[in-house]
Amino acid sequence: MSDQHSTEKRKSEHIDIALNKQVSGRGITTGFENFRFIHQALPEINFKDIDISTTFLNKRIKAPLVLSSMTGGTERAWEINLHLASAAEKRGWAVGTGSVRAALENPELGFTYNMRKAAPSIPIFTNLGAVQLNAGYGVDECRRAVDIVQADALVLHLNSMQEVFQTEGDTDFTGLLKKIESVCTTLEVPVGIKEVGMGINGQLAKQLFDAGASFVDVAGAGGTSWIQVEKFRSKDPVRIQAAEAFYDWGIPTSDCIVDVRKAIPDNQKTLVASGGLYTGVDAAKAIAIGADLAGFGRSILKDAVESEEALDKTLERIEMELKMAMFGIGAHNLEELKLSPLIKKID
Amino acid sequence: MSDQHSTEKRKSEHIDIALNKQVSGRGITTGFENFRFIHQALPEINFKDIDISTTFLNKRIKAPLVLSSMTGGTERAWEINLHLASAAEKRGWAVGTGSVRAALENPELGFTYNMRKAAPSIPIFTNLGAVQLNAGYGVDECRRAVDIVQADALVLHLNSMQEVFQTEGDTDFTGLLKKIESVCTTLEVPVGIKEVGMGINGQLAKQLFDAGASFVDVAGAGGTSWIQVEKFRSKDPVRIQAAEAFYDWGIPTSDCIVDVRKAIPDNQKTLVASGGLYTGVDAAKAIAIGADLAGFGRSILKDAVESEEALDKTLERIEMELKMAMFGIGAHNLEELKLSPLIKKID
Amino acid sequence: MSDQHSTEKRKSEHIDIALNKQVSGRGITTGFENFRFIHQALPEINFKDIDISTTFLNKRIKAPLVLSSMTGGTERAWEINLHLASAAEKRGWAVGTGSVRAALENPELGFTYNMRKAAPSIPIFTNLGAVQLNAGYGVDECRRAVDIVQADALVLHLNSMQEVFQTEGDTDFTGLLKKIESVCTTLEVPVGIKEVGMGINGQLAKQLFDAGASFVDVAGAGGTSWIQVEKFRSKDPVRIQAAEAFYDWGIPTSDCIVDVRKAIPDNQKTLVASGGLYTGVDAAKAIAIGADLAGFGRSILKDAVESEEALDKTLERIEMELKMAMFGIGAHNLEELKLSPLIKKID
Amino acid sequence: MSDQHSTEKRKSEHIDIALNKQVSGRGITTGFENFRFIHQALPEINFKDIDISTTFLNKRIKAPLVLSSMTGGTERAWEINLHLASAAEKRGWAVGTGSVRAALENPELGFTYNMRKAAPSIPIFTNLGAVQLNAGYGVDECRRAVDIVQADALVLHLNSMQEVFQTEGDTDFTGLLKKIESVCTTLEVPVGIKEVGMGINGQLAKQLFDAGASFVDVAGAGGTSWIQVEKFRSKDPVRIQAAEAFYDWGIPTSDCIVDVRKAIPDNQKTLVASGGLYTGVDAAKAIAIGADLAGFGRSILKDAVESEEALDKTLERIEMELKMAMFGIGAHNLEELKLSPLIKKID
Ligand SMILES: Cc1cc2nc3c(=O)[nH]c(=O)nc-3n(C[C@H](O)[C@H](O)[C@H](O)COP(=O)(O)O)c2cc1C
Ligand SMILES: Cc1cc2nc3c(=O)[nH]c(=O)nc-3n(C[C@H](O)[C@H](O)[C@H](O)COP(=O)(O)O)c2cc1C
Ligand SMILES: Cc1cc2nc3c(=O)[nH]c(=O)nc-3n(C[C@H](O)[C@H](O)[C@H](O)COP(=O)(O)O)c2cc1C
Ligand SMILES: Cc1cc2nc3c(=O)[nH]c(=O)nc-3n(C[C@H](O)[C@H](O)[C@H](O)COP(=O)(O)O)c2cc1C
Repeated sequence: MSDQHSTEKRKSEHIDIALNKQVSGRGITTGFENFRFIHQALPEINFKDIDISTTFLNKRIKAPLVLSSMTGGTERAWEINLHLASAAEKRGWAVGTGSVRAALENPELGFTYNMRKAAPSIPIFTNLGAVQLNAGYGVDECRRAVDIVQADALVLHLNSMQEVFQTEGDTDFTGLLKKIESVCTTLEVPVGIKEVGMGINGQLAKQLFDAGASFVDVAGAGGTSWIQVEKFRSKDPVRIQAAEAFYDWGIPTSDCIVDVRKAIPDNQKTLVASGGLYTGVDAAKAIAIGADLAGFGRSILKDAVESEEALDKTLERIEMELKMAMFGIGAHNLEELKLSPLIKKID
Repeated sequence: MSDQHSTEKRKSEHIDIALNKQVSGRGITTGFENFRFIHQALPEINFKDIDISTTFLNKRIKAPLVLSSMTGGTERAWEINLHLASAAEKRGWAVGTGSVRAALENPELGFTYNMRKAAPSIPIFTNLGAVQLNAGYGVDECRRAVDIVQADALVLHLNSMQEVFQTEGDTDFTGLLKKIESVCTTLEVPVGIKEVGMGINGQLAKQLFDAGASFVDVAGAGGTSWIQVEKFRSKDPVRIQAAEAFYDWGIPTSDCIVDVRKAIPDNQKTLVASGGLYTGVDAAKAIAIGADLAGFGRSILKDAVESEEALDKTLERIEMELKMAMFGIGAHNLEELKLSPLIKKID
Repeated sequence: MSDQHSTEKRKSEHIDIALNKQVSGRGITTGFENFRFIHQALPEINFKDIDISTTFLNKRIKAPLVLSSMTGGTERAWEINLHLASAAEKRGWAVGTGSVRAALENPELGFTYNMRKAAPSIPIFTNLGAVQLNAGYGVDECRRAVDIVQADALVLHLNSMQEVFQTEGDTDFTGLLKKIESVCTTLEVPVGIKEVGMGINGQLAKQLFDAGASFVDVAGAGGTSWIQVEKFRSKDPVRIQAAEAFYDWGIPTSDCIVDVRKAIPDNQKTLVASGGLYTGVDAAKAIAIGADLAGFGRSILKDAVESEEALDKTLERIEMELKMAMFGIGAHNLEELKLSPLIKKID
Repeated sequence: MSDQHSTEKRKSEHIDIALNKQVSGRGITTGFENFRFIHQALPEINFKDIDISTTFLNKRIKAPLVLSSMTGGTERAWEINLHLASAAEKRGWAVGTGSVRAALENPELGFTYNMRKAAPSIPIFTNLGAVQLNAGYGVDECRRAVDIVQADALVLHLNSMQEVFQTEGDTDFTGLLKKIESVCTTLEVPVGIKEVGMGINGQLAKQLFDAGASFVDVAGAGGTSWIQVEKFRSKDPVRIQAAEAFYDWGIPTSDCIVDVRKAIPDNQKTLVASGGLYTGVDAAKAIAIGADLAGFGRSILKDAVESEEALDKTLERIEMELKMAMFGIGAHNLEELKLSPLIKKID
């Protein structure tokens, strides 16, 4: 099987497995359930005055909400991307494509990433694996990745555990920080860095911002575990069994947020919280403990596969929940929600 | 459907749902189970000398126990109110009507709130939603609410989360504290403020007492969740699903009591503890950690629907449990029970 | 039914209920499971050198183990008492009779308490409810209680919660400490004080020792709950339901021991630990955290009903477990076990 | 049955019971689940550069991994030992024989311990119960034990709880430290000391190193409980029942490691961690919190019985997991893994 076909096949399997298999870790959660808002019985607020709009990648968005990088490269992925883009455009969310490596390898697949067609106004970010910078990719490929998508930004993902659980995975992660820095400082658009479900802690976030990252998405543990996803794809009995030993690997999403915010008090740095978010209450908690935006991956995938309408309903619900949580504590806008004293850790 | 009919219908649905559906939150409890009395093997007390009488709204009551605001506005509600009033009168508890808004909208329904008929001597409080002060109601309506019931006091309830989960709910909670203050200082009878199951914390209790509230009923989380109740009434799929995200919203009742008592050390302010109480041991714990009176809502609703006799038996049991708990620690009266050192938090 | 018959009937019911019903509390345990010995892999000890003999009531006993006060007053109780006495004599444990009130009321029943017949050499203690001192009993009755049993000591039990859950229970516990003091200082034999499963804390233990008690048996919570036992005997629906509210009442046995030992550092005061003990490891833990002797009630009742042989096997097992635990930490004798640093609380 | 036959029979039963019965304790675990690595999303490492080789008993081994002392003395044991030795040789692990007492008693059985035949290059340690030093054995027997196996070291095991649960067990553990010291200082090869599943704490480890031990293997609790194993062999009803009371006896393996490393900061002393290890992640955690090597017993027994191939696959998996864990935190070698700050205790 050619490289390009194998990339396509992998992308397709990922979606099926994410939809149908038990791919969350065990014994590890996002930690959001350990935070509880302190209800304000007299919120002194009118629900309809609540404003959740914000700015991301120099564009105004209607909600601090992001559809995480997921797919591309196949006909079916194109359909999903269309749903994602249309719903995001309609509701004013930001949205990302999955890794565009398939299109770099085979330009004919470029159209499957064309979210811009359905989403002229919102921020769209394109996506590549950072480890590809050790496998021949450079600023040129990054630029093409941006062009294919007409993206507002590039996101490089860090996925060491996923790679090591693939039999032929790219597991040379040496010297990547330097190369990331070089992309950040050279590329014409902002560059964000994300994990894919194991989390980024404060120390690394600081290094990444220092290297020029425009935003960091923690993509922490408690949601989709790519070790478990790869387990279902693997034919290697050793790796299949080993996946069991890593059932609780990673940094819980809420720990990441708290840790990064402690390391990066500077409010100018944009922090996206994702990994295991299901509801607008999760998003509200993420923001209350330090994030700027909240991202959703697998929890909205089923709707994204189904239709724009199904997805739209779910996004509407998430927004509604976010606003209801803000109503419950009397927060008029995201500034009042962010790092609010009205949330506490319970034991 | 006219406003008045819809209010009636809502009241009726609330009772059916509270009786038959799973309307408590999940992952949240009153917290009373985390407190345990320190048994005194030699209590040096005669059980029959235990005195649980106290004063509320300037009337002597035989027990520091309250039947919480629940219903009115329909024939069936009238029957329930009659049972509540008769049993409360017989045992010397205080009792409240549900919101009298239905009777303000349609004076013919006034009779359904006439608890005074069956309860000539005990304290009765009438009830309105505080948010109505932003929807046209003022001191006049409050006065009529008192008159209809011949009440000793008015209770204004705070129910932001319930309103926001109703499709056409009143969700303008701006400027309410000022308006509450104006009612408190103008009305001829004392005014109490309560939540409906999400809790009032210390800071707000202080503001309410400063605004002239005569008593505060925390109505905390761990019992009936009005988010879950409204979920069963809702036809809006977004709200129905959103209710799941708020399964553990609110401040646990015991947390409210401890927090309010810390903020209001002044013993002159009356604190009612309600929200999820089932037994006299719960009541004893509530008083031991800082409350003056304990209120019961949904846990006695089934008996209140059934008959005065059934309700009377349950109230007798609650009193007996309260006294047994006091016997167990050797407390002769409520003064000795209140803020007793003979209770401790367990882990 | 005459008083005397009702006492007999009560005693018989207690045994049947203790044997066949779910009479332990819920949500409350002895707490022994939270303590763990620190295994010493090189104990530098010979198992056969381990000595568990001690002195109790001026007699040498072969093990620091006690069969708790349980029964008397009926033919069947006599059989049980015979098994208890024979096994205790054989193994060198101390043993107690149940309350001899039945024999005081009807001297013909005296024979059912005649443990001395089968146990000439070991310490035997007779038993009365302390609250009887408020119901007409005085030093004379205590003396007769000792005589009937030819006892080495009298034990007065404190059972406030049991009494209050009996419809006609004796619930006047006023002034008892003074009366206990008078018995302690007047009676010719030592007087011990025990609870019956709700526990005695440090402050009360100190008062009791100051009043002249020779030993205190905490009889803490986590084992038999007399509230639950009485629930099964009760015909009063209010009390039957109320028992549910007291499912976790009492002070866990291990908490009692730690608390009493803190209040009574004086090693001259004898502390018996009972309430929910099943094994010799429980006994070892009780002694390691501060007790002098360990008592067993309901956990050996089934064997005591069956036969001397069955009981003997169980006592042998308990001793073996105690010695094995001492072997595991290298303790040669009870002095080395008592307040050993080789036990710790785990979380 | 002669002593020698009974030793053989015991060895055989141990294997069957370990394979087929529930022989782990209850309410006690290794504690490794309470430790979690802090994922490093940018490990700056190439997976293939990870080096897990180390030195043990003056030999270079390819992995810091040990196959724990298990068997010998029967034809079947010989087969198992052959599988163990071949797989260990192939992968470069260290390996131990079970107790060679059977061969000392009956030299004809020596061949069943001949691991050297299949494992010419790796470290092999022979094994004897330390308590035998109180039953007639001395340096001579230790020397023969080494000779029979052509071992690089002798391991003396401490198994007090196992012995006391055998009806005819050797339970004289007096004066053993002195005798161990004498063996350590006299024998020509290094001597290690291990438990068999109840753990060695810091204080004892220090005493053992001071006595001349070359390494200590904590063999802590959370894996195989020899109390439970002996329960299945026992015919003594008292011991069978007593085993239940000791369901959670012992020091959890992770507690041992932390405690020993605190007592022995000196990095020159070799610490082996075993007891309940299943995966290479367990091994990685053991090393990260202070061990030098990690040992596997019962978790690999089934494969060792089956075939060299089955065992080899499992050892490969364990190594892979260890390396993956190191990859996840960016540790290039064991020095970087050992006492790494990138692990934390979770609650
Ligand atoms: C089907 C699927 C495909 C994904 N593909 C990519 C990808 O190409 N690039 C990327 O950075 N992350 C990818 N992710 C990871 C997500 O962006 C996200 O970080 C991760 O799933 C954790 O978030 P979640 O728990 O909300 O799913 C993918 C996730 C899913 C479920
Ligand atoms: C059927 C029903 C109707 C209620 N109606 C009112 C009301 O009209 N006004 C009000 O202040 N509270 C109302 N409540 C709330 C109760 O007074 C109480 O605060 C709440 O149920 C929490 O207490 P609980 O857990 O004991 O039920 C109602 C509760 C129930 C169960
Ligand atoms: C059947 C039965 C009868 C008892 N009778 C008495 C009694 O007469 N006097 C007394 O002081 N305690 C009595 N007890 C209480 C025990 O002495 C003991 O304190 C209590 O059961 C708690 O210990 P346990 O959990 O080991 O059963 C009785 C217990 C049982 C099970
Ligand atoms: C079948 C079997 C036989 C064993 N025989 C011995 C032995 O002869 N000598 C010894 O020191 N340990 C012996 N052990 C104990 C192991 O070496 C190890 O310390 C213990 O099983 C705890 O580790 P685990 O939980 O990984 O099994 C034996 C273990 C098993 C399962």
